[in-house]
Amino acid sequence: MSKFWSPFVKDLVPYVPGEQPKLTKLVKLNTNENPYGPSPKALAAMQAELNDNLRLYPDPNGDRLKQAVADYYGVQPEQVFVGNGSDEVLAHAFHGLFQHGRPLLFPDVTYSFYPVYCGLYGIPFEAIALDDAFQIRVEDYARPNGGIVFPNPNAPTGRLLPLEAVERLLQSSPDSVVLVDEAYIDFGGETAISLVDKYPNLLVAQTLSKSRSLAGLRVGIAVGHPDLIEALERIKNSFNSYPLDRMAIAGAAAAFEDRAWFEEICAKVAASREVVVAGLEALGFEVLPSAANFVFARHPQKDAAGLAAGLREQGVIVRHFKQARIAQFLRISIGTPEQNQALLDALKGL
Amino acid sequence: MSKFWSPFVKDLVPYVPGEQPKLTKLVKLNTNENPYGPSPKALAAMQAELNDNLRLYPDPNGDRLKQAVADYYGVQPEQVFVGNGSDEVLAHAFHGLFQHGRPLLFPDVTYSFYPVYCGLYGIPFEAIALDDAFQIRVEDYARPNGGIVFPNPNAPTGRLLPLEAVERLLQSSPDSVVLVDEAYIDFGGETAISLVDKYPNLLVAQTLSKSRSLAGLRVGIAVGHPDLIEALERIKNSFNSYPLDRMAIAGAAAAFEDRAWFEEICAKVAASREVVVAGLEALGFEVLPSAANFVFARHPQKDAAGLAAGLREQGVIVRHFKQARIAQFLRISIGTPEQNQALLDALKGL
Repeated sequence: MSKFWSPFVKDLVPYVPGEQPKLTKLVKLNTNENPYGPSPKALAAMQAELNDNLRLYPDPNGDRLKQAVADYYGVQPEQVFVGNGSDEVLAHAFHGLFQHGRPLLFPDVTYSFYPVYCGLYGIPFEAIALDDAFQIRVEDYARPNGGIVFPNPNAPTGRLLPLEAVERLLQSSPDSVVLVDEAYIDFGGETAISLVDKYPNLLVAQTLSKSRSLAGLRVGIAVGHPDLIEALERIKNSFNSYPLDRMAIAGAAAAFEDRAWFEEICAKVAASREVVVAGLEALGFEVLPSAANFVFARHPQKDAAGLAAGLREQGVIVRHFKQARIAQFLRISIGTPEQNQALLDALKGL
Repeated sequence: MSKFWSPFVKDLVPYVPGEQPKLTKLVKLNTNENPYGPSPKALAAMQAELNDNLRLYPDPNGDRLKQAVADYYGVQPEQVFVGNGSDEVLAHAFHGLFQHGRPLLFPDVTYSFYPVYCGLYGIPFEAIALDDAFQIRVEDYARPNGGIVFPNPNAPTGRLLPLEAVERLLQSSPDSVVLVDEAYIDFGGETAISLVDKYPNLLVAQTLSKSRSLAGLRVGIAVGHPDLIEALERIKNSFNSYPLDRMAIAGAAAAFEDRAWFEEICAKVAASREVVVAGLEALGFEVLPSAANFVFARHPQKDAAGLAAGLREQGVIVRHFKQARIAQFLRISIGTPEQNQALLDALKGL
């Protein structure tokens, strides 16, 4: 603690991202990246921007990307916000839409960045317990609140909340913003973007880091009523006029335009997921139903921390959370068939 | 105003960046971009990142870039912060270092994003009048304050505060952070980074958008005592783990490594500035002494708004601010010799 810090800084408990090892030989199944590369059309679009024009500022509004998202989802560009990764988009949403004095609600087992944002912006929150099967119970959220946020599918469980349940949640808190964080939706769920015209309190966030295989580019989006988007734009334009660089705007737009590549790699990951689930179950693991590009699994006899350490010794890294309720689970990203087999082979000896 | 907005959002007055026209035929002298392209080595470094590895997250800490900056300035990596443009770096600094209840001090004529950040984070401020020659008077800042921030050279005036005056300012407010925003320092000033080991209250911010010709890539840095850097890291890691994409980290690091290119283009811009000053003075303009890659000029008889409009009709865009004290000035970025001549030719007929 330094006397120069703003007082709240000392109380911040920053988010800790999954390890990004600098070794390249590892089977890296710890941060839910896509095992397949981005659309070749996205790479080509970035290539076209890689020239002396980088001396010039990008379009501060990212209109090309907003239009591509709008076209993809059949919404208006005024319903689209774009940012430097979905983490930035979420941060602006917490700041601009959740400071109402009443507690923000989110699941007790969820994306661990949510309480960090609450610390950053002084937002009170209540963590609502998932049921014993690690599912969201919609009725538990029908209480006074300053907003609701959850990932769908949830992280790190992978469990999907069906669209009709999302709709019940929206109806039960019509005066609060419900932020559905769809980082993993494309691997097995149905987006709530189809509901934005019906529910002015719905904001849907997505990332290009998972299904569009561009974690290294840092692009996220949000879709919702223009009033909600305006709040995000006001924050963004009071924070950083140009959050997306020239290559990010072009690459992300092209990724949305290349529907065929996107559908192909999502289908491959989803198919591999079922192979991994079967392999883990054959080894005695209990695996939660997953609609994401990862699985959340525990072994009735084997300690999760020990398994993670044993895997690491064999060059396979997965994610283990020390949080009480999930301390016996491993979160395992879906890799290529070869990586998945390496994981299963490594587990056999542990 | 929507009931869903956090209450402060309605009072935000966002920053308005200079126009980024989508036409390409314009002589664009309105946002202080570099007329020369980025280092070819920076482009090559980005090229090496443009591949399937974009599926993977970048290094959240940007260590390669921190090391390049540390090597360039002869400091330690722990004294370096990196972010998504210097606007993001400044935002985190305002948030993490200036919330002390006492007013932040900055010049009355300065970068117009400063009061916007104050609005975003609820920071009281006092605008301290520049003297009649638009210079900072250091003695005016020797009053109780919660921090001091100013660009050096100042924007949009271009006037430089000599390093010994910066040092006096640091000495007169030893209990407050002094943030020196050196967006334009490389075109004619001497960086205060040489003082960071001596003054624990000094934070120096820089951008790669001007002298390193990478406005389209979005990279900014800050250098200061490790305690100040830690505050910025805590905010960053509570906001967005990965603000810099893979190409930005690589391109920015290579730009710092290519000292020869950097020195050559800075020298060319500085030489052109003197030609523009002479040309403007020959047309009867009064031009403030500039150490930046722009000049700030007024004509004793001709209205600045009218001149800006007349230039625009001839395809030359410059920046005009409506703020009372500077409403008769034009801020003109230094372009290539051809662009500068086009500006002077266009002004002749107005």
